[in-house]
Amino acid sequence: MIDLKAKWIAADWGTTHMRAWAIDEQGEVLAYSESNEGMKDLQQNEFEPVLLRLIENWLDNKKITPVMACGMVGARQGWVETPYLKTPCVPIDKTQLTVATTKDTRIQVNLVPGVMQHKPADIMRGEETQIAGFIKENPSFNGIVCLPGTHTKWVNVKAGQIENFRTFMTGELFGVISNKTLIKHSIKSDGWDQASFEDGVIKGFDNPGLIASDLFSLRSESIVNDLDSNSARSILSGLLLGVELNGAKNYWKNKNVIIIGSELLSKNYQKGLKILGGESHSFSLEAATLSGLTSAYIELYSE
Amino acid sequence: MIDLKAKWIAADWGTTHMRAWAIDEQGEVLAYSESNEGMKDLQQNEFEPVLLRLIENWLDNKKITPVMACGMVGARQGWVETPYLKTPCVPIDKTQLTVATTKDTRIQVNLVPGVMQHKPADIMRGEETQIAGFIKENPSFNGIVCLPGTHTKWVNVKAGQIENFRTFMTGELFGVISNKTLIKHSIKSDGWDQASFEDGVIKGFDNPGLIASDLFSLRSESIVNDLDSNSARSILSGLLLGVELNGAKNYWKNKNVIIIGSELLSKNYQKGLKILGGESHSFSLEAATLSGLTSAYIELYSE
Repeated sequence: MIDLKAKWIAADWGTTHMRAWAIDEQGEVLAYSESNEGMKDLQQNEFEPVLLRLIENWLDNKKITPVMACGMVGARQGWVETPYLKTPCVPIDKTQLTVATTKDTRIQVNLVPGVMQHKPADIMRGEETQIAGFIKENPSFNGIVCLPGTHTKWVNVKAGQIENFRTFMTGELFGVISNKTLIKHSIKSDGWDQASFEDGVIKGFDNPGLIASDLFSLRSESIVNDLDSNSARSILSGLLLGVELNGAKNYWKNKNVIIIGSELLSKNYQKGLKILGGESHSFSLEAATLSGLTSAYIELYSE
Repeated sequence: MIDLKAKWIAADWGTTHMRAWAIDEQGEVLAYSESNEGMKDLQQNEFEPVLLRLIENWLDNKKITPVMACGMVGARQGWVETPYLKTPCVPIDKTQLTVATTKDTRIQVNLVPGVMQHKPADIMRGEETQIAGFIKENPSFNGIVCLPGTHTKWVNVKAGQIENFRTFMTGELFGVISNKTLIKHSIKSDGWDQASFEDGVIKGFDNPGLIASDLFSLRSESIVNDLDSNSARSILSGLLLGVELNGAKNYWKNKNVIIIGSELLSKNYQKGLKILGGESHSFSLEAATLSGLTSAYIELYSE
């Protein structure tokens, strides 16, 4: 094992996963570590041991290494609850970070708070850091940032601030519909059919009120007309995205949209928007996360 | 125990429940029996023993008692698969009943087939019997029959036939969304708030594309604005119904709608339609089922 020491450590600790990066003096990534010990699986006193197990090799015993963490780790059911910032606001405010007290004196853990909106009520934890990272790289950006995921966020960014946003739980719906309803019998595969996906997007967008019927049709079509499993899965994905793009159209019609998400999801959102006449560009999720945590680190420790 | 003997036996055997009625010479119900041994919990060879346990006391050992059964008992995973009738068609065709062979010679079990539609693909099993029952009582009816449930059916009935229909899996969505997504934390109660339900109907109807966002809002509102659990549950129910009523509007706008379902669901559908300017009347689910099975019995055994 290489004996590397981190200047500081970046951590993205979500509901189901934890990812950590060792960063050097020059801001370069020295090492990466990950775990599926997400917030939902941990009691409050388990966060520190899990973190230490993942980053221990990166610590210099003679000094304190800062850890900058974002995500659901700062939720009520997480390590320490960090009070939300309220829109409109900068995505990260260095004066509002919360320190998670540790027994181990070699680390100082700073949690980035989430952002809430009062009316209509909405919340995010983690995406604010990616938005901060994107803004750091594009300081003059005014427009829409879309962060697809379990709970996709459409965010209106203006003059370095989060103006307002809207969450669609499309990813979570895809999960429960494909695993927990009768449709599961019709989409047993993990395959993909691009044309079916695109048909689904258009159908969902054109007539979102039919969604509960279009979903049942996946089952009927597989029984009556032998619809294959890959097509059914792709139509399902397209339908749900199409319904979302109908509801989110004020966010993307004639707007400058940046998509920050996993490669697969970003590709689907870009394709969906394109079919409907929208324009978008993608930005790396990892780069956004690291850049956001870096800006928090620099602001906090450069004084 | 009273020693009653049935002239024939009616059975509604669905996915999760089995209900049976002993009928006398005059067509009156002598006794009722039910079980939660639905189709999904039974292997093929378990249907006969379950049926016998429920109806044995009603059998006359000296003759054969007919059993008329409808529902998922006739599905591929049921007792015997009954081939679907194809739209347009009468809801029950006595020449298309399927006999389920039994070891016990005291009964003759006749299964009512479901109905399928080729384009757009759709299927029903059980509702055709309720439609047949309603038509028997209202032979000159032309209009829409709505059968709310796990998989709600909107059925266009004309001259005694099922012309076409559309299924919305709204009930199943309500189940998985309220039990298997993050919303479950916000709707722990079984309570009800009528005003919230009505708000939900209007919201879902007016902007169905926002459904995945409106659902997430239930969680955000409970965190940010202390939305109470009864209201959240009622809004959820209203939202999903509103989206369905948007998609189904060709079925109910300026139409004569008959609703056949459980008392609670029928009331919600009637209220939802009324808010949106639709008109409807309800018809008893049990009366429809019994009347449908009775008409099948009479046609089959009166010759």
